Amino acid sequence: MTTIHPVILCGGSGTRLWPRSRVAKPKPFLPLVGSRTLFEATLDRCADQARFAAPVVVTGAKHLDHVEAQGCAGMQVIVEPQGKNTAPAIALAAHRLPADAIMLVCPSDHHIADVTAFVAAAEAAAALAADDWMVSFGIEPKSPETGFGYIKRGDAIPGGFRIARFVEKPDLARAKGFLAEGGYFWNGGIFAFRAGAFLAELARHRPAMAQATERAVAGGSEDATRFHPAAEAFGALEGDSVDYAVMENTSRAAVVPVDMGWSDIGNWEALRDARPCDDAGNCVSGPAELVDCRKVMVDSDGPHVSVIGLEDVVVVVDGDNILVTTAAGAQKVGKLHGAANQ
Amino acid sequence: MTTIHPVILCGGSGTRLWPRSRVAKPKPFLPLVGSRTLFEATLDRCADQARFAAPVVVTGAKHLDHVEAQGCAGMQVIVEPQGKNTAPAIALAAHRLPADAIMLVCPSDHHIADVTAFVAAAEAAAALAADDWMVSFGIEPKSPETGFGYIKRGDAIPGGFRIARFVEKPDLARAKGFLAEGGYFWNGGIFAFRAGAFLAELARHRPAMAQATERAVAGGSEDATRFHPAAEAFGALEGDSVDYAVMENTSRAAVVPVDMGWSDIGNWEALRDARPCDDAGNCVSGPAELVDCRKVMVDSDGPHVSVIGLEDVVVVVDGDNILVTTAAGAQKVGKLHGAANQ
Repeated sequence: MTTIHPVILCGGSGTRLWPRSRVAKPKPFLPLVGSRTLFEATLDRCADQARFAAPVVVTGAKHLDHVEAQGCAGMQVIVEPQGKNTAPAIALAAHRLPADAIMLVCPSDHHIADVTAFVAAAEAAAALAADDWMVSFGIEPKSPETGFGYIKRGDAIPGGFRIARFVEKPDLARAKGFLAEGGYFWNGGIFAFRAGAFLAELARHRPAMAQATERAVAGGSEDATRFHPAAEAFGALEGDSVDYAVMENTSRAAVVPVDMGWSDIGNWEALRDARPCDDAGNCVSGPAELVDCRKVMVDSDGPHVSVIGLEDVVVVVDGDNILVTTAAGAQKVGKLHGAANQ
Repeated sequence: MTTIHPVILCGGSGTRLWPRSRVAKPKPFLPLVGSRTLFEATLDRCADQARFAAPVVVTGAKHLDHVEAQGCAGMQVIVEPQGKNTAPAIALAAHRLPADAIMLVCPSDHHIADVTAFVAAAEAAAALAADDWMVSFGIEPKSPETGFGYIKRGDAIPGGFRIARFVEKPDLARAKGFLAEGGYFWNGGIFAFRAGAFLAELARHRPAMAQATERAVAGGSEDATRFHPAAEAFGALEGDSVDYAVMENTSRAAVVPVDMGWSDIGNWEALRDARPCDDAGNCVSGPAELVDCRKVMVDSDGPHVSVIGLEDVVVVVDGDNILVTTAAGAQKVGKLHGAANQ
């Protein structure tokens, strides 16, 4: 069995879970589902030393305290001088690993309910990556989401499929068509690569990025378990996503289908859906009393919340901020003044 | 013009506006509509010295501090040894006034938008009371409320109508029938009596109560502007409402119709409806941001409240308690554990 090197991407500063998620303490570092934070749970999923090497975490200076407080033994941290999207972040990790290391790139702000399914998919993806496929996890779509990119599978290969094409976020009619047609998956941002193969593909399709990240690593410095890429070289490169930079260009894109109770917890509605609920569909965190409610989530950090007669509503209390939104309205949270002006 | 003696009844400890209204600071003493408390507004309505004498306030010891803090110059306070419902409270005031004084009995926890209409009705009621009618204000009903008693008017008399009958809180079908039929009014608990006439009717229909209240006043004591009825005599009597004790028994019950923007503010929905709102029907007190909301009331004593996508919902923040309820659910507030276990 190939040892898998987890590469945990830990950046971003979303406003969509405001007021609980803040610039100073973003989503990965909050215990949103259960008692472990999303970052801790991401490490937990790759904790089996029979399968996984110690993780490499790529993050920014502003999140370093959280990463080190919540991190695990043996973890190496790459401190990005600035955020440049996912392709340069993965390239930094690839340059720091042996060329034959199998990387499993994982966002740290998603929830995965079925860890067994995750590990099985990781092994299937690792096997394909060892054969120099650029492998994406293909999340079985549960609904016609318009907020995700989709992956259309092509011909079967051992352990997965070629990728026929990537589809940008579709409109609702198109998304419904994908589900009806079948063979489409959500792009969950989880990838497996052989480090050397990834860098070779990057050099082919984004040569400047490949060179800049190589220089940044060559000129970087170590500081205990932290690695600091050279700021000048890294700062000069043009950022891009791994999807655009590599996956949509390579001729060896593959997808491993997986059904693992995945959620990007992209807003409060998604978080409500990811949490365990009672028979009425309600879920409560903190002191609360619900009367005649269905599918109501209450999340309070202190004050007692009483809710009467509501359906499909989320109530969040965080310090001096209270949010009350319909589930459907949750996607507008990031546009609230309070969220925008933190 | 007859001078009218306002008799302000100031008791009760409702839970229906929890968490804003509490046992320690009940509804009359809160600025629920505008900047004046309901009690202050009740005094304000009777402040015109050309028409009104200084008020007599009947209250309990536990509310005395609030009454005196919010009261007006010249006010006399009768401190009930215990609550015995409205008939004994009114009898105490009647015993303390000259027999020919015209009393205008007013609850102190209602809102009246149109003070001019109130004063006009008070004068019409006073004129009837001077002729020894037992006069009730008949509030023009705006909807088939099932939470109020109704008054059916009978024959016209100068300035009003005889009362044909009183109707207990009806069910919805019956209430709708009343509105369709016409000639029915809400019983708002506002009355006018000549003091001596009231006591004579009370002696006729509740002789024990009349005697006990007379003894309580005869044996009472004064303390600056406060009058303390004798606790033993008052404590021994059997309490009752003025409706049961006098109005439903007297042969001289009259009603003066009035349309004055009245609300008993019996729950949060009623309070929302009494407050000025914007074009979307929203009303906000405290820091808040509303997005895609209609007929939403936010009332916060500090924390910032963001609401997205809701209609016909009330959000109240009071210290460590937050209430979120549909307007229709507001009637269940008193049954919440938080409200019941203050």
